[in-house]
Amino acid sequence: MRKVEIVKFDLSSRKFETFEDCVAEEKPFHIFINKKHYVTILCSPSNLKELAVGHLLSEGIAKSTAEFEEIQIKAEGTCKIKLKQNVNLEERIKLFKPFSRIILSACGSTSPHQYVGKLPKITSNVQVKAEVILESARRLNAIAETFRKTGGVHIAAIYKTDGTLLAFAEDVGRHNAVDKAIGASALNKVNFAECFLTLSGRLSGDIVLKAARVKIPILASLAAAIDSGIALAKDAGLTLIGFARGKRMNIYTFPERILS
Amino acid sequence: MRKVEIVKFDLSSRKFETFEDCVAEEKPFHIFINKKHYVTILCSPSNLKELAVGHLLSEGIAKSTAEFEEIQIKAEGTCKIKLKQNVNLEERIKLFKPFSRIILSACGSTSPHQYVGKLPKITSNVQVKAEVILESARRLNAIAETFRKTGGVHIAAIYKTDGTLLAFAEDVGRHNAVDKAIGASALNKVNFAECFLTLSGRLSGDIVLKAARVKIPILASLAAAIDSGIALAKDAGLTLIGFARGKRMNIYTFPERILS
Repeated sequence: MRKVEIVKFDLSSRKFETFEDCVAEEKPFHIFINKKHYVTILCSPSNLKELAVGHLLSEGIAKSTAEFEEIQIKAEGTCKIKLKQNVNLEERIKLFKPFSRIILSACGSTSPHQYVGKLPKITSNVQVKAEVILESARRLNAIAETFRKTGGVHIAAIYKTDGTLLAFAEDVGRHNAVDKAIGASALNKVNFAECFLTLSGRLSGDIVLKAARVKIPILASLAAAIDSGIALAKDAGLTLIGFARGKRMNIYTFPERILS
Repeated sequence: MRKVEIVKFDLSSRKFETFEDCVAEEKPFHIFINKKHYVTILCSPSNLKELAVGHLLSEGIAKSTAEFEEIQIKAEGTCKIKLKQNVNLEERIKLFKPFSRIILSACGSTSPHQYVGKLPKITSNVQVKAEVILESARRLNAIAETFRKTGGVHIAAIYKTDGTLLAFAEDVGRHNAVDKAIGASALNKVNFAECFLTLSGRLSGDIVLKAARVKIPILASLAAAIDSGIALAKDAGLTLIGFARGKRMNIYTFPERILS
């Protein structure tokens, strides 16, 4: 978050007035794996260790935190990761990045369409009360300081099924916010099978893919679901909820995990 | 836009009810330039010619529509582009894609930070009445059918300085919506120096870069500006406006183009 001088205009008074306002920051973050540049992510420059760990887990490059040998966050937005020797990095990258260059509808890094029909099923039979989901969505705003002050970031949080907050992250990118929340939880050895994830951003295929890869059984959002997200959630056995606002929500898949 | 069956839950009645609802679609779109795969974009499957043309212009790969020899949109979301022989494609790609893999805060395809200090200045001295900007933002919702029905897409529109609507696009990605609006205007030989662009999404560096590359002098949004967007707008001489809602707006750079 950074302060900038801006000019506010109000049509009622027809006046221009100079103000100091807060804006969200965005910086490049370079991740190197086993000494090779892996990816550069534009993100909010906070919780970078969580972002790196969460990104590798949610993209299928690392299967658990046990596969990390070393994680070093350097000044100037660089992260050096060493994976355990038994991880065949080239093979995993090949598996998960089949296209040479992809631009997603709203970032991320893999094309979700190719995964329909290929995801392992989430078998968790946890159940969550509808009011716990609605409350988790309501709380996003309350805990999100940068969001309130700048309006320029996305929010993601991981909760236990009873509504206990386990991890929380803000980022200019909705994918990064999800990665940071996943990374923070993984570093704390959270069991994802007993959690749900709530976010502010839309539920596109790539967001659903991230949750499905770490086997989070329920994904809820304040915003809309996109058809690619619904297709993948159906396929992965993941409960997908959109427009969780006030007293209402839309359940796109597997409503049996939600209790009235 | 596609119809899906969903379950609505309302805490007031504690009832689950099955409904048919509209969701936004997202499909891969593969662009080939001179017979080589250039990029795959996940997008709303509409106005694909406009998207391809706008994307190449806003990313600096083509400098004007005069550089296109042929544009063929194929079934199944593929576009084959032939550029004029005098365009050195490899050189332009090198110039604009210096990193091997980049994930943006909310998609797009280039890291905007490296352009600060390197952009040609926008010298257009057009001026627009503040109420024309506010009205352009208000109209986005009115003209955006998919947005109203699904809540799952972004909107971008290009207006003449007197408020005449010139081009309009919706897409699951805010970058794609901007590209489609730019592409549609370019195909209609619009003079960008006498226009402004209004969008629903946040003003990050990569969005500002797209407008700056085609020399649109004013960029307005319903949403917030990110610091990277402000830095690039300052550098490019572009007027950047955020939170254009109701009677108010925040002007981040070059307010002299806005008349009270």
